Order: sequence, then C-alpha cells, then structure tokens
Amino acid sequence: MYLTQGLHRATQQNPDAAMTVYGERTRTNREVMDRVARLAGALRGLGVAPGDRVAILSLNSDRYHEYLLAMPWADAVLNPVNIRWSAAEIAYSLEDSDSRVLLVDDAFAPLVPALRERFDGLTTVIHCGDGATPDGMTSYEALIAAAEPIADARRGGDALAGIFYTGGTTGFPKGVMLSHTNLMTSALGGVATGYLMAPDAVFLHAAPMFHLADLAGWLGVLIAGGTHVMIPAFDPVAVLNAVQQHRVTSSVLVPVMIQLLADHPRAAEFDLGSVEYLMYGASPISEAVLERAMRLFPRAGFTQAYGQTEAAPIITLLGPEEHRSGRLRSAGKAVPHSEIRIVDADGLDVPAGAVGEVVTRGGHIMLGYWNKPDETAAALRTGWLHTGDGGYLDADGYLHIVDRLKDMIVSGGENVYSAEVENAIAAHPAVAAVAVIGIPDDEWGERVHAVIVCKPGHTVTPAEIRDHTKERIAAYKAPRSVDLVEALPVSGAGKILKRDLREQYWGDKARMVN
Amino acid sequence: MYLTQGLHRATQQNPDAAMTVYGERTRTNREVMDRVARLAGALRGLGVAPGDRVAILSLNSDRYHEYLLAMPWADAVLNPVNIRWSAAEIAYSLEDSDSRVLLVDDAFAPLVPALRERFDGLTTVIHCGDGATPDGMTSYEALIAAAEPIADARRGGDALAGIFYTGGTTGFPKGVMLSHTNLMTSALGGVATGYLMAPDAVFLHAAPMFHLADLAGWLGVLIAGGTHVMIPAFDPVAVLNAVQQHRVTSSVLVPVMIQLLADHPRAAEFDLGSVEYLMYGASPISEAVLERAMRLFPRAGFTQAYGQTEAAPIITLLGPEEHRSGRLRSAGKAVPHSEIRIVDADGLDVPAGAVGEVVTRGGHIMLGYWNKPDETAAALRTGWLHTGDGGYLDADGYLHIVDRLKDMIVSGGENVYSAEVENAIAAHPAVAAVAVIGIPDDEWGERVHAVIVCKPGHTVTPAEIRDHTKERIAAYKAPRSVDLVEALPVSGAGKILKRDLREQYWGDKARMVN
Repeated sequence: MYLTQGLHRATQQNPDAAMTVYGERTRTNREVMDRVARLAGALRGLGVAPGDRVAILSLNSDRYHEYLLAMPWADAVLNPVNIRWSAAEIAYSLEDSDSRVLLVDDAFAPLVPALRERFDGLTTVIHCGDGATPDGMTSYEALIAAAEPIADARRGGDALAGIFYTGGTTGFPKGVMLSHTNLMTSALGGVATGYLMAPDAVFLHAAPMFHLADLAGWLGVLIAGGTHVMIPAFDPVAVLNAVQQHRVTSSVLVPVMIQLLADHPRAAEFDLGSVEYLMYGASPISEAVLERAMRLFPRAGFTQAYGQTEAAPIITLLGPEEHRSGRLRSAGKAVPHSEIRIVDADGLDVPAGAVGEVVTRGGHIMLGYWNKPDETAAALRTGWLHTGDGGYLDADGYLHIVDRLKDMIVSGGENVYSAEVENAIAAHPAVAAVAVIGIPDDEWGERVHAVIVCKPGHTVTPAEIRDHTKERIAAYKAPRSVDLVEALPVSGAGKILKRDLREQYWGDKARMVN
Repeated sequence: MYLTQGLHRATQQNPDAAMTVYGERTRTNREVMDRVARLAGALRGLGVAPGDRVAILSLNSDRYHEYLLAMPWADAVLNPVNIRWSAAEIAYSLEDSDSRVLLVDDAFAPLVPALRERFDGLTTVIHCGDGATPDGMTSYEALIAAAEPIADARRGGDALAGIFYTGGTTGFPKGVMLSHTNLMTSALGGVATGYLMAPDAVFLHAAPMFHLADLAGWLGVLIAGGTHVMIPAFDPVAVLNAVQQHRVTSSVLVPVMIQLLADHPRAAEFDLGSVEYLMYGASPISEAVLERAMRLFPRAGFTQAYGQTEAAPIITLLGPEEHRSGRLRSAGKAVPHSEIRIVDADGLDVPAGAVGEVVTRGGHIMLGYWNKPDETAAALRTGWLHTGDGGYLDADGYLHIVDRLKDMIVSGGENVYSAEVENAIAAHPAVAAVAVIGIPDDEWGERVHAVIVCKPGHTVTPAEIRDHTKERIAAYKAPRSVDLVEALPVSGAGKILKRDLREQYWGDKARMVN
C-alpha cells in the first residue's frame, strides 16, 4: 500500500469530481493528479532525491494536500511541521531530520530568516502562499507551471513515508517514523469500522493538517474518494460557514474546538444538518461539552478516537451507537487493525479492571524514532508500542484511559486520575474548560489542583467547585485549590499542556511528582 | 498485522460469545483461543519449527478454523489443500512445499496411504475427524488435551503466512505465497467497503475453506468478531437448513452454488430472511441466475468480488447498490487497498474502454510463487500483478472482465468473449448452466461452441439457442454448435474447467487457440 493509491483510484473512477475546495478555488481529481505529478517533477529538478526529507510549515490549504501527495509521488519523505512551535523548535526539527527543502505559506514566510540563521542546511524554500513570493524563495505555482510531470514512484510498504514530530506535552520533540503501511493500515482500519468516511464524503480540514489527527481523516477521505474542504485554521465562524456553504459531512476536531463551537453565540444561525460524522480525539472530552455538541449537530454520529502519533494514529474507536448507549467514559474498542493489552511495569498482563499501561501492536505501529535507537527500543520493547497512557479494560473489552501515566496524582497515598476529576468539574454550568494537575503539598505529598476557564459572564468560587465535585466523585479527589484563568495553554494539536501548568507550581523542584 | 489479531480481540471483547458452530458443537472465543494455543503447543512438541509448512486436507469444520489460527500462532505456514485433487496432485503440492505434517479428516483419511507412498517426507498425520483415529495417525483431540499452551508467536507483516496452491484451470498448480499483510490488507479493504461483515455477523462456510474465496470471508468475520458456522461441504438443503437454524447473516458462495440454491424445489420452505449479505465470485454469474437468487434472498445485498489467489484475493467489488442500479455486467471498482490498470502487451495503459490485461498493485499482492522465481518475475513484472484476465474500464472506473485472456475466441477474425455469450445463453428459460469455448474450425479458425446443462425436465435445440442468442448479441457471437451435457466439469472452487472442456475438441492439437 502507498499513500498515492487513493489519488489514482479517485481519478480513475471520478476524474471530474471536486477533490479540493479552498476559498474560491476548486480542483478536480484529474487536476490535482496532474499538479502533483508536476510538483514531484519540480522537486526532482531541485535535487530532491528518493528518501530526502521535505518539510512544510503552513496553515491548511489545498496546496498542503498537494504536498502530502507529491512527496510520496517523488519518493520523498514528508515532514509536516508543528505550526505552534517557536523558530528554535522548528529549526531543531528541520536540522534533526535534515530537511533541506521547506514549503512555507504567507503566514510563516516571516519566520524563514530566523530558520535559515539556525539551520544553514536549509537550501531551498518554496513559497506556497497566495501573496507575492518573498525574496530568496521559489514560487510554488511557477514551479508547477514550469515542471514536467514525472511518473509516480509508487514506493510503499515498509518504506518511510514521513517523519512526524510529536508535540511538546511529554518532553523534547521526537521524530516518529511512519511507513506507508503504517498510515494506510490505520486509515483502512478506521474506514473499516464504517465511521467517518464514504465515497461522497465532504470533509472539513479545520484542525491543523500537520497533525496526525487531521491526517488520519485526510487519508480516510482520500481512500474513500471524497472531497477535502480546507480552511486556513480553526475559527468557530469559519467552521460554521464552511459547513453550511459546502454541505460538509465529516470532520476531525479536538475537544477544545468542539467546546468553542458548542458555546458559540452565533452557532444556531447556521444550517449544520449536513454533518453526519464528527471524530474527536487528542484529549478527553467532558460529558457536559459533548452533550452540548450533540445538540448543535443533531444528525452527527460522534466518534471518539484514541491514539497517538506512534500508532499512525488510531488505536481504539468509540462509535456513534456507543455514544448513545452510555459508553461515553470509554475510549472504545480496539479497531480491526489494532490489538491492545494492559500491562504492568514488567510487561505482564494485569487483571481485567486493573489499571496499567496501554500497549498496542499491529500494522499501524511506527518504524521507530528518527535517529533515536534507545528511545525506539524503549517504546517498542517486547514488540509492543508502549503508549505511556494509563488505562484499564472493562469486562466488554472497552478501553478506559484514566490518564497519561505521569498525570496520575498521588495524594495522601490515594491515586487520583485527573481525567475523572476534570469530567466532574466540567459539568458545572459556569465552567468552559478545566485542567487538573497535582501540585506539591507539604501535608499530602501532592494536592489535587484545578485550573479553570469560566464561560463568559460566569465565575465560581473554589468552595462551589469542591462541593460540586464531591457530589459526583469521592471527596479525596475534589480539588483542594482552584485557579481561575483566561485560557489554558494548549499545544498545536489542541492538547492541554499540563507540563506548562505544572511548571508554575513545581518550577524549583527537581521533579514534578511527589 | 497478523492473522491471529482478531482472535485476541474477540476474546478480549466478547470472551463468551460463540466463535464456531459445527453440527451440535459450539465453542466460544475463549475456548477457541485456549484450544488454538494448545494445538500450537502440540505442533511445537511434534517438531514443527517456525516457518515449517503444515498442510490440511479436510472438509469444512470448526477444527479447520482452529488450524487456520494455530499455524500462525506457532509461526508455522498454512497449506490448505484443494480437496478436489487426485492423490497425485495432492502429493505434488505436499512435496513441492515440503509439508511434512498433514491434518486429515474422516473423508480424506483413506487417501493417506497413497500420499505416503508418493511423498515419503510425510512424517506426521494428524486425524482431525470425528471417527476413530486410523492406525499410524495422531488424534487431534488427544493432542490438544495433552498439550501445554504456548504464547502466540505474533509474527506478521511480510512474514509468510501460507502457501495457497492455485486451482487447475490454468496449468500445473503453483504455490502462491501470501504474507500476513497480504491477507489482512485484503480483508481490511473488503471490510472497509461496508459489505459482508459486522460484529454480529453469523457467517456460513459452505464453500470449501481451502479456497481463498471462503478464506477471505473467514478473515473478514474474524476481524469483525463474528460467529462462524461450518457445514462439511456445499449441499443445497444443508445450506438452507443452516441459514434457517443459525440465522445466518452472510456467506461467500460461487455462482454454481447460487444457481443450485435458486433452482432448488424446496428452497421456498425455508426462512432465509436473516441473510443480509451474499458475496459471490470465482466466476461470472448470469443475470438470469442472479435475478432468481435475489428473489430467494429478499433481504440480501449481493456483492460480486473479483480477485484471484495472487491478490489475497480481493481486487474489485461490486456492491449491493450497484446490483440494483444496472451495473450487473461489471465486476465493480477497485477497493480501498487496491489499484488497477488495463495494459497492453508492452505494459502501457490502453485508452478507456479498450480491452487489455488487468493489472493490480497494493498491499494485497502475493510475495511470489513458491520456488518459482521465473513465474514470479513474469507475474509481477513492472511491479504490478498481471492477472491474466482481459478487461476494460468504463468511464466511471468500473472494471468489466471480458474473459480469461486465453478464453477469448477468435472466429473469422472477430474477437468473441465467452462471458458475453454465456450471459446471453443463460437467459434462456431452459438453461441451468452454460460454458462457451472456442473449438477448431477449418473455415473460421475457431468456432464458438456452447456446452449446456438444461434444467430438469427441459431441453433445447441448437437452433433455438442460436436464435435466442442472436436476439441479444451480434450474430457472429452466437454458437455455431451446441452440446447438451448432464454437468459441467468444475474445479474445487466451483470454477468451470474450460481446459477440460476444450481438451475434448483440441485433444490432438499442439495448442488450444487457432
């Protein structure tokens, strides 16, 4: 299997159907295939050899889609850069992967001098924006116009398809190496569940396309032969507009986006009845937010995806029926391509219901971390991908993620899983978003602490939050302290950066667990 | 990906659900997993090392299912033997693959002395029948009872999963080597279309389990976590009974079986309303037979699969909606894991609508032929599997198989594709089955000849057939001669053996094309 298969199939079966829609620009399957073959030819002309890494730093666009196809067409290796990173972090990832060619759009062109300064291996910068091409860069459209198309390399199987740097929630970025088979397996397995994709899908790319969450949806729609609608970046009104205008049927969002849509004052003005499937993931969602979202998208089946970049990315899914049947607290079941187990520190299975580390195996598991054999060996020890997530399996084989293992709070000898506390707090009518962390406490070792964003015009007191929480879960899990903030720090993928939150409280300590 | 994944997942998610039903015997997911782990342990004890081939020669049963799982569990290689073969052919395949361990049931135990005589490497015969264990054989149940379970080898990816000898329609059998990824890709891609499989599927194994057509269904149901109902072999009343008794939801059949069910005088006595999906393949089906079958199974969506052993096996599918929308003459569209092209003798694409050879590429394509590097290189030249089938793509990307390339009849300089003629003849009310071949003719080079099986109590004259055919297709395609026979020669997989038919007419000629 290889990433470009869906492009060939779509062009063969529906040459004149719309493949990409971006602003006023619509391109058919046939047009995209021609442009991809030319872009691949242009890259070859620029000296990109098979196996070379080519990076992109861009908001969402139809050209991002072409990049994702032209690199495998030329047997180059994808490196979609996290758009939330600083110049130092981006330069690190370019240098680490030796990405000498970079595509940038208008939004990120101003960063290029700083990148060049930090990584002098950056020889070629292609401007894929719509504004004038800055000095020292090559015009994307001029390249395509001048290039001869080349034949699809059709490399696939275990060949390296891309290096995907993981976000900053768990330490310094690592380059996750995914093969064609890894990505296609996850996409096929996701499609096989019947969720999200259909040949007439109109998929909205509102989450950033650099992230595996959106890329999983991208590849599923590509396989199914549907239409991709891109907006540059998530914005509630832009999403609502695009859904109404293009009769969007499906999308992949992260919970914070769903919360912003559900709580948007203008949401009710739009016709959102075309939406059939919404997949969300990257972090847990509270039941209260999900209930509001289900009212906003009345025809939509909600699917929760649990996964990570290292699993290309889908490990388990919780489908629409299971959302309606009270399974909301679960992350779902292992999908057709994936096997999961819960293990202790020695790699042995724990009893059903007991918490341990989630491990997974199947065709979706990464080749390894780029240039990091020790980390690779640790993550893939015993032949299973160790997710670093704590969870348990219930009697029906549903996975429950209790937390990132390192997010477990040990307070007075009791284990407290922050996701459970967050779920309870989020049900409070004044709460828009919440993160629960452990902070140092002389008496308890760690203390349960909540950081809360209130809905506009609302506020709460710590005592109200404690009382509200204790009505729902055990008293020792209720936060002993509460901070109200304007916004939570989130990664490019919408994950709450708990490390950043913890640093405010643990800053001068050697470690962040007591 | 590895073949045993579905067993682990089903046991984790529904340990006490029925996995196999055979006669009065029902076994749960948990029981099957325990027995598979023990059978694998027993094989290890018998000296079966990783990579060794282990054959089975048996009618369908729940133990066939256990064999299919225990071999990959032990990292042994499957070799499911064609049950229609002669002792000489079977011995050839055992010796060619060096399968020193063989499982046989009651039906085939009498063949064992002849096999031992021809292949002295056959050291161990395991009796997996329900009768008394013959002398010189080991009891399957005694092995399982005495064995210690071993851990699943969980070898997968490109590792060899099985050698599948292709039927005798196109010359001497070749061992098709399929990897875990090959088989799982085809199964995932098939499931991804939404046809056939669901977690609550009750699948009937009525076609022989040695064949990839049934094995594709087997793996799809395994992935989905459904129940497998086995009957020893196809028999119309046994199928009708099993469907009614076990509320069967899906099956894979070959056209000749569908014809026998549709025309069975007792068919109307049975409640067949549980059947939701019927997949058929291995040879084309006439529209007349399909119409009768659609009346017999009123709730069933019919899906036509086009494929071959070398493609593990699914290449294209024609789904239920397309059966209802007049697409019946097509073999469907390339499925999500598969790419197809139509090429000329030089491997270049022919224009849309023109006939050429069907080639395909993707994760489903075989590793190669066992011990046949030249044939492998020929079949996989230019990186594409050359199917040997002639076909064309219409403007919507639907594949139309016009014939096995060698089945094309050239009569008076005109190309005649036998499938088209067969379709026309099969619509005659007296015709139960028909095969059209080219036979030598002094005037025309080759002459279109029809071999017909009439329905009970009916007969036809050659003139009636010619007139009937000419009403439907061009006159030069109508058969110039007709033979009425009691039955057509069919392979173990239900394919009409045209080679056998042709030999009656071409026997003393050096080749069978003029």
